[in-house]
Amino acid sequence: MTKNVYQFHEGNASMKSLLGGKGANLAEMVKLGLPVPPGFTITTVACMDYLKNDEIFTETLKKEILNALTDLEVQHGQKFNDQENPLLLSVRSGAVFSMPGMMDTILNLGLNDQTVEVLANKTGDARFAYDCYRRLLQMFGNVVYGIDGNRFEQYLDYLKNQKGYQLDTELTAEDLKQVILSYKNIYEEVLQLSFPQDPKEQLFLAIEAVFKSWNNHRANIYRNLHDIPHDLGTAVNIQTMVFGNSGDNSGTGVAFTRNPATGSKEVFGEFLINAQGEDVVAGVRTPEPLIKLHRILPEVYQEFQAIAQLLENHYQDMQDIEFTIESGKLYLLQTRNGKRTARASFQVAHDLAVEGLITKEQALMRLEPAMIDQLLHPVFTVEALNSAELVAKGLPASPGAATGHVVFDTKQAKSRVEQGEPVILVRQETSPEDVEAMSISEAIVTSRGGMTSHAAVVARGLGTCCVAGCSELEVNETTRQIRYEEGVIREGDIISVDGSQGKIFLGQLETEKNEESQVFQEIMTWADDAANLKVRANAETPQEIRTAIEFGAIGIGLARTEHMFFEGPRLREMRRLILAGTRDKRQDPLAILLGMQTSDFEAIFKETLDKPIVIRLLDPPLHEFLPHTKEETETLAKNLELDSDYLTARISELHETNPMLGHRGCRLGVTFPEIYEMQVEAIIRSACHLKTEGITVSPEIMIPLVGVKAELDQLKERLIKRIEAVLAEENEQVSYTIGTMIELPRACLIADQLAEEAAFFSFGTNDLTQMTYGYSRDDAGKFIPYYQKTKVLENDPFQEVDEEGVGQLMALAVKLGRQTKPDLKIGVCGEVGGNPKSIAFFEKIGLNYVSCSPYRVPIARLAVAQSAIKNKD
Amino acid sequence: MTKNVYQFHEGNASMKSLLGGKGANLAEMVKLGLPVPPGFTITTVACMDYLKNDEIFTETLKKEILNALTDLEVQHGQKFNDQENPLLLSVRSGAVFSMPGMMDTILNLGLNDQTVEVLANKTGDARFAYDCYRRLLQMFGNVVYGIDGNRFEQYLDYLKNQKGYQLDTELTAEDLKQVILSYKNIYEEVLQLSFPQDPKEQLFLAIEAVFKSWNNHRANIYRNLHDIPHDLGTAVNIQTMVFGNSGDNSGTGVAFTRNPATGSKEVFGEFLINAQGEDVVAGVRTPEPLIKLHRILPEVYQEFQAIAQLLENHYQDMQDIEFTIESGKLYLLQTRNGKRTARASFQVAHDLAVEGLITKEQALMRLEPAMIDQLLHPVFTVEALNSAELVAKGLPASPGAATGHVVFDTKQAKSRVEQGEPVILVRQETSPEDVEAMSISEAIVTSRGGMTSHAAVVARGLGTCCVAGCSELEVNETTRQIRYEEGVIREGDIISVDGSQGKIFLGQLETEKNEESQVFQEIMTWADDAANLKVRANAETPQEIRTAIEFGAIGIGLARTEHMFFEGPRLREMRRLILAGTRDKRQDPLAILLGMQTSDFEAIFKETLDKPIVIRLLDPPLHEFLPHTKEETETLAKNLELDSDYLTARISELHETNPMLGHRGCRLGVTFPEIYEMQVEAIIRSACHLKTEGITVSPEIMIPLVGVKAELDQLKERLIKRIEAVLAEENEQVSYTIGTMIELPRACLIADQLAEEAAFFSFGTNDLTQMTYGYSRDDAGKFIPYYQKTKVLENDPFQEVDEEGVGQLMALAVKLGRQTKPDLKIGVCGEVGGNPKSIAFFEKIGLNYVSCSPYRVPIARLAVAQSAIKNKD
Repeated sequence: MTKNVYQFHEGNASMKSLLGGKGANLAEMVKLGLPVPPGFTITTVACMDYLKNDEIFTETLKKEILNALTDLEVQHGQKFNDQENPLLLSVRSGAVFSMPGMMDTILNLGLNDQTVEVLANKTGDARFAYDCYRRLLQMFGNVVYGIDGNRFEQYLDYLKNQKGYQLDTELTAEDLKQVILSYKNIYEEVLQLSFPQDPKEQLFLAIEAVFKSWNNHRANIYRNLHDIPHDLGTAVNIQTMVFGNSGDNSGTGVAFTRNPATGSKEVFGEFLINAQGEDVVAGVRTPEPLIKLHRILPEVYQEFQAIAQLLENHYQDMQDIEFTIESGKLYLLQTRNGKRTARASFQVAHDLAVEGLITKEQALMRLEPAMIDQLLHPVFTVEALNSAELVAKGLPASPGAATGHVVFDTKQAKSRVEQGEPVILVRQETSPEDVEAMSISEAIVTSRGGMTSHAAVVARGLGTCCVAGCSELEVNETTRQIRYEEGVIREGDIISVDGSQGKIFLGQLETEKNEESQVFQEIMTWADDAANLKVRANAETPQEIRTAIEFGAIGIGLARTEHMFFEGPRLREMRRLILAGTRDKRQDPLAILLGMQTSDFEAIFKETLDKPIVIRLLDPPLHEFLPHTKEETETLAKNLELDSDYLTARISELHETNPMLGHRGCRLGVTFPEIYEMQVEAIIRSACHLKTEGITVSPEIMIPLVGVKAELDQLKERLIKRIEAVLAEENEQVSYTIGTMIELPRACLIADQLAEEAAFFSFGTNDLTQMTYGYSRDDAGKFIPYYQKTKVLENDPFQEVDEEGVGQLMALAVKLGRQTKPDLKIGVCGEVGGNPKSIAFFEKIGLNYVSCSPYRVPIARLAVAQSAIKNKD
Repeated sequence: MTKNVYQFHEGNASMKSLLGGKGANLAEMVKLGLPVPPGFTITTVACMDYLKNDEIFTETLKKEILNALTDLEVQHGQKFNDQENPLLLSVRSGAVFSMPGMMDTILNLGLNDQTVEVLANKTGDARFAYDCYRRLLQMFGNVVYGIDGNRFEQYLDYLKNQKGYQLDTELTAEDLKQVILSYKNIYEEVLQLSFPQDPKEQLFLAIEAVFKSWNNHRANIYRNLHDIPHDLGTAVNIQTMVFGNSGDNSGTGVAFTRNPATGSKEVFGEFLINAQGEDVVAGVRTPEPLIKLHRILPEVYQEFQAIAQLLENHYQDMQDIEFTIESGKLYLLQTRNGKRTARASFQVAHDLAVEGLITKEQALMRLEPAMIDQLLHPVFTVEALNSAELVAKGLPASPGAATGHVVFDTKQAKSRVEQGEPVILVRQETSPEDVEAMSISEAIVTSRGGMTSHAAVVARGLGTCCVAGCSELEVNETTRQIRYEEGVIREGDIISVDGSQGKIFLGQLETEKNEESQVFQEIMTWADDAANLKVRANAETPQEIRTAIEFGAIGIGLARTEHMFFEGPRLREMRRLILAGTRDKRQDPLAILLGMQTSDFEAIFKETLDKPIVIRLLDPPLHEFLPHTKEETETLAKNLELDSDYLTARISELHETNPMLGHRGCRLGVTFPEIYEMQVEAIIRSACHLKTEGITVSPEIMIPLVGVKAELDQLKERLIKRIEAVLAEENEQVSYTIGTMIELPRACLIADQLAEEAAFFSFGTNDLTQMTYGYSRDDAGKFIPYYQKTKVLENDPFQEVDEEGVGQLMALAVKLGRQTKPDLKIGVCGEVGGNPKSIAFFEKIGLNYVSCSPYRVPIARLAVAQSAIKNKD
């Protein structure tokens, strides 16, 4: 027969799934010989049986509970409902994971109209006894019967008011008798029921209430949100009462073994003298800092300090401890690993490892990679957020927090920034023409586009906070207004943007920034030591590359060359090139672009030096470089001295129905070979120039969007020819390799063929995900959020690699590629390259490195370490 | 040592790859005891050795040839360069596949200034001898030395003119002596060379010329075009001369054992008395029909008839025979399987099988499925094509040939058709609004879009001939003009369109139509008997379905429901539905559409009756149903009483960057469930209505674009609920199944999961190819033609399934699907479903059926039969 009830001394810390977190830790403390009021735990299994069995409380379970109760009575020398020495109990829920919305504590269970008098007589403290009883009535009514807690509080306030009291403690025994009477009336009024006088009835009702609370609405939602299984159930802890409210050498408190905000090594807590249960957190009286206990009850304080140290050593982590002092004697009611800020997490993990309590690898495993965002970017203060007015929620496209004046275009942005005003660029979506404004904005907001939209990608590269695809905002760039559900924001208005949460607030919110600490740097070094996968960055401007390397990238996994063509004079030449009707007319802009690209690469190589760098040749369709509106077209026509009708016709010729699936990537390379030839010439020439300065670079040249082996064959042959000609001309040697991006399903399927020619593979998971799912990143915003809400999709596959679909293709490509070339270097440079869960998958399928945006590099460094440690186990 | 030279009696018909087609058949005829002038063949291997070995004629090879020559001399009792009985030879090339551009025949080799006199004396016919010599000079000069043949012809014409002759035969011996002299002068003039007098030198030069001709430009191009390997080489046939020009009981001719135009059983050929070699085909004199030989040389005629029959029986196919009669004796110079028209192909294959010469399966294997197009559609007559003026070439999107007046829109089309004028619709590209005009046009021409564009798909469905993506035409729908390289075509001008060839001609060309014959029907029945794979059709209008069934489809593999929403009042309601902002406002148009769809399905089911039919729920993105131009938008706004700004905004909201990867297919089904629910209700209600008429239909309902199992789960549950409600209401039973389209790479990868819920799979190879390659059908026209030209792609993957990429995914999906459900029914309904090569692949991976456009059904029926027969072998 299943054992449903465990005395505390029968359990231990490893039995969490059966006894819940609280129960298991109480048992563990008993095992450690610590002062814990005796009690027992009803298992999570019993809870699930009850719930599955139409909420019928079986006789078997009742008997087990009553047996445990009898044991407790014998052990404790008190009896339930006894007229001389009545046993009083606390009943508390305790699931495996702590969850809000679960039933809270009921204290002083066992009191009734008789035993309250016994307690009064026995303790000689009628006030104490009546206070216990009124608390029981209040908690029981609220928790078991669902009576609105305010009903009880309102009466208490009314009475205190009438009597002119400030504090609950001013209530006299007589006052409390009146409270008890009124509370009983509330039961009658609301439920047409009396408070049950039979302590056993009280107990079973309380246990049922705990069981049922597992399935309440709030708990269900919380479990859905946090992926907690619904069939775990909750345990119930029944414990003999100790009374923190039994006089001035009694009290109750909570404490952390280290500072939960900073992580510094000091016991940190609060207490209240002559108080019970939730008085500390309820804010009825202001609690005292723990250090004051030293003065009031020095021995208890010393004992608590010793126990705190013992528990931390025992659990090898910072503890969050609940305690009660009854007439000068210390009791422990709970211990658990303490919640802490990102900063404290790093400090504690670091210190515990340095103190030798845990290994460095254990320290690494305790850290959540996503927390690093909080360390590296400013955040709004808790106080500011408490009073902030939320406007809308979009996608958390680039982390950080910022405040500024709303602007809609580059001109306004520049004019305000020149006047020293911080600005926030708000647009429906951004395009290359907005890059200047983006680079001087404190934050970027778009109403369309996803996590990999232009705005999101550029913002992450800049390290600027960004909320993308905020569809609740109706951005009108003409009227220079933003409509949202409750109002309108105009140009110049101040808003605040939280890029880590995807939230937009009205007005200015205060931010704070964690300094990048010594501790953080040290932990990153430990991470690098533990890792197998290397971390590179997706970066192309010298500034981005510098940031990436500062953040510890070992090289560049993706330098996109198209971004180099999007600025001012470059864009002009690029447009001339595209619009040239003949090969001859292309020569002039090509020559100018060659010069520009060569100095671009020189600047880049001066940052990367001998670090590896993958340079991707031009990828987007040509029409991305052309103007989109009639106005822009006319300006360009004038600028290039072209007939505006001709230009319009050319642009419409280049228009594509589905540009993502169109004439782009290596398809352009094959049909207009001059562009790729110019690009490799620029790469190799700049490498030659640097060599004369004593800098040796080894560029890895990457051909994008290969789907057919002949594309790679033909392009490689052609590019090598040009490269060798340049090297001969420069009379230099440069070691370079030519590889390919794997971003089409077909490339994965023929990876064995591609590996014959490719020196390396780099997965472009953004495109690969688009093609595998048939989702366009630009359009999927119309259904992906709905899909996630309705659980059609577990995750956004552009954020976390889809292991069973996209991942299957990737694993196949790795297998086939290495079949041809066993030491083939394979990386990933798509958006998911910086996603911790995805990184674990990439480790599993045998990639060599991941590459992500510069600000994600530290996150990835921690994630690759964790993944390596997990794999080792 | 390799044997390079084979006497005819050493070979046989199976040695084609070594001896070439001609050589192997000559050897075979010798084996059969037929009158073949003796000779030998130099192998194709010798040719390749010569070409690979820097064109050096090895001594070994020379020796082998001289040995064979000696054997021939002994055997024939004549000697090379003999002053009494000189041996004369013909030298002819003979590759494995017959190819144009290869070296032609040299006759009378061995003649020189001496032996010509011997021949004259010996035959007592100086005219004959000199005629032979001048022919040698002419052929040798042209073929071996590359002297322009016109040089010789011009002199001959000049002389005949001077003498007042009409025919070559009027030239006297003296005339011919003068010709010989002049011909020798041409050698001196052009080459500063004399004609080689040494017969062995003549022989080796002739053999080298044959070898070299393998690599000439025309031959290379031909091999590239027809996928003939370049390393096969050609054989050389050396044969003793027989002389058709040795008098009036001599002659030469060619004949087919059956009529090559109609296939009827009659020996069919032509001959010339007193003529040699190519006189028959050169058109110098008009040849006589073979039947006339009966009168002139009755015994020879009888003998030839007998031999023709023998050869046909022996080769089990219609033969194309060359023969020569020398002084009343018949010689055979060549036999091969005869080329024939599509009609003859069917007739001959059918008759041979009926006659018992071959099996039905052999008959089926002899037919090229693509030929069926010629049988089912009108074609331009050969005479018409000979004098036609080609305007431009586009994609052969839908077969057939037609003539009509150019129109650019529905209004013009209708007005002209009402006046009884045939019209051809020409547009940049077509849209649903053109369907009416398309349905009354004789042909459709577009300047944009590929083989699977709207125009192409609709045209094939209508059986109307269509040339798509004809980018050489600049179609201006506003000025109502078509510019092409050499001129302008205006509205109302007459053009002719060949949809099988993708060609457009000026003016009216005469067409002819093959009647669908009894023979054709019979062969189709044989095909159905031999096949494993079933053939269904992609069709949705009653007319299309009727056509499909007439053509032998066993059911419908794809009835697209979106086409039902593209017409007049339907389109209006669809637009109201899409533009309705709220669920409430959608109810009214939904109810109207439900009524329309229900009667649509009733009409459809009345055609299909108990045949299986797969109905695909709505697939395209919603914006496809909305207007695209400002004008149309304003008209619609008025029509629906909407604010035109609001409408414009709504349309722009629905706009997608990459609609192919956007909010379409089951994604619409999930987010706007009302549409699919309405559709299944219409399907089931109409099935119920028909049941009351005694017609039982079993619809197969297909959900498109599934990529995630939850899409299928959720939709299936929802649709079944609606269906069961309808059935309960109607109080009827309808057996239906719900399956899914497999058209995303991810669907293939998780096919095991999808098979848990799907009753059937149908591959949508169009989309699957788009996603696997990352090619948009609408845009790939910009590079696919270039890719094919430069051999980056062997084939257009939208026309023929890409076995190694797309096919690999399909094979995986079949494997995974059947792993879950061993009897899962799997078909293919994409464009390649009617492609014979692809069909063989589909047979291999285990599909159950293919589905294609109605007019391709017969082609597919033949192809599936061939594939089954091949697999059996």
